[in-house]
Amino acid sequence: MVAADGTLLEQAEAFTEAHRGAPAVVETVAGLVRGLVARPADAVPLGVACAGQIDPASGTVVYAPNLAWTDVPLAAELRRALGVRVTVENDVRAAAWGEFTCGAGSRPRSLVAVFVGTGVGSGAVIDGRLWRGAHNVAGEIGHTQVVVDGLPCPCGRRGCMEQYASGSGLQRRLHGALAACQPTRLAETTGGDAERLTAPMVKAAADAGDALARELWADAERFLTMAVANYVTLVDPEMLVLGGGVIESVPALFDVVAAGVRELTTVRARVLAIERARLGDWSGVVGAAILSSEGG
Amino acid sequence: MVAADGTLLEQAEAFTEAHRGAPAVVETVAGLVRGLVARPADAVPLGVACAGQIDPASGTVVYAPNLAWTDVPLAAELRRALGVRVTVENDVRAAAWGEFTCGAGSRPRSLVAVFVGTGVGSGAVIDGRLWRGAHNVAGEIGHTQVVVDGLPCPCGRRGCMEQYASGSGLQRRLHGALAACQPTRLAETTGGDAERLTAPMVKAAADAGDALARELWADAERFLTMAVANYVTLVDPEMLVLGGGVIESVPALFDVVAAGVRELTTVRARVLAIERARLGDWSGVVGAAILSSEGG
Repeated sequence: MVAADGTLLEQAEAFTEAHRGAPAVVETVAGLVRGLVARPADAVPLGVACAGQIDPASGTVVYAPNLAWTDVPLAAELRRALGVRVTVENDVRAAAWGEFTCGAGSRPRSLVAVFVGTGVGSGAVIDGRLWRGAHNVAGEIGHTQVVVDGLPCPCGRRGCMEQYASGSGLQRRLHGALAACQPTRLAETTGGDAERLTAPMVKAAADAGDALARELWADAERFLTMAVANYVTLVDPEMLVLGGGVIESVPALFDVVAAGVRELTTVRARVLAIERARLGDWSGVVGAAILSSEGG
Repeated sequence: MVAADGTLLEQAEAFTEAHRGAPAVVETVAGLVRGLVARPADAVPLGVACAGQIDPASGTVVYAPNLAWTDVPLAAELRRALGVRVTVENDVRAAAWGEFTCGAGSRPRSLVAVFVGTGVGSGAVIDGRLWRGAHNVAGEIGHTQVVVDGLPCPCGRRGCMEQYASGSGLQRRLHGALAACQPTRLAETTGGDAERLTAPMVKAAADAGDALARELWADAERFLTMAVANYVTLVDPEMLVLGGGVIESVPALFDVVAAGVRELTTVRARVLAIERARLGDWSGVVGAAILSSEGG
């Protein structure tokens, strides 16, 4: 439950368990809503923030690789289950809208929000409106290329920023280093399991002088900075917001990226506002709720 | 003179001679207009496409390094001289608006136009409206970074795309190569004067097997492709337009960049329209005229 000003009134969580299929996920979400609202028909509309490519007009999840969903009519199914109006938006764009309406600083006219976590996503508000792109796939900053013929990405391309500056990218690089028997204290830190690696582990090992960790962290800083600065140069937003698990778990990263962006972008440093995201993990939920209250 | 559909009815040209100062340039422009229109007071409004950072509300040229102008009230001066309403817009953004309204293909809802000439600039139309940026500096794709710690740029940064994929960038690289006594047939082609180098000269020498020319041309292709693909990935426009002197003078470049962008961007190839600019050198003039007829 989200108030009109974005305040989170009540919350509930459950595992997605996407492998059980879309109908099971719909039932899980419906159950959470019923737990929060005794009579859903009387409730405010439901906003859903979902990873993947969303058709906002119909609320269909067109393609969500992490859920293994193609053309799932999520809004229609939830509407049938709960009898309320449902708005579905891409999770990162919803988060950008949350930060725009209720988050960082006074409400600007334009904003670019970049979230660095397992992957790196972003959303943009242009002239007061959420910009989804002509095909609802705008803002895929994690897959902008930062190195010609760089590291391979699961998307099939090479040199995507996400391979250098995301949680999954760091894990993938450690996995390769361990397989190549590169010496690093991160082998002990993670117990030899690269999937246990977190951004703070890399930063701590880099600060302690570990060569591999220093390389990984330097790359993460420089390529995140480069991609975000280029985004700002192209869009020239009033405000840049940086958030997500990696930014939140390594406080120094925000300052490094903010300073680097100010140096690299053509937008003059003194006019560009750079803020930390303020809604944390719930920014997508808040943004989707606000979007649903606005009628989508 | 530009008709409502963007057709160029009459034209006149003169050298800018910016070194003579802003009042002289204003008089030159006013003289051109008087030559085209006997009684300016009866004429349609005047649209001006000008390089540099423009404040569209006041029509002031805030900063134009190539003209050495700072805070020149261009619209006000021309209004005083001619007695007509004057709209001033950045030249590349005006060109993007020209291509959007009267140029490439049927009118899309969103468009990104990239012009490769002496420098590389771009403009974007978002949701049917020209996006100028929060500080009127959106679209500086020539100064997006494509190589960390790459070639130095006169802007003070390093690795700007323009240093690899523009007329001036190619000249600067040849200048460095000649100074370093690198062997290249471009030395003869240009008579040893790098400022005489054109993009077709580089392409022809590359095709003939010249090692330096092959390196320069390969860099131009890959870094232009990378920057444009990243722009498309971030904005997800309905249409991408490529134009400018370098694109027009080397016909094969359009095809290479279009194919490369389709491979590199996350926007699916089959939904992205990529078109050649159709208004040529006059796209800025046409766009500024259309903007002026729309009341700016």
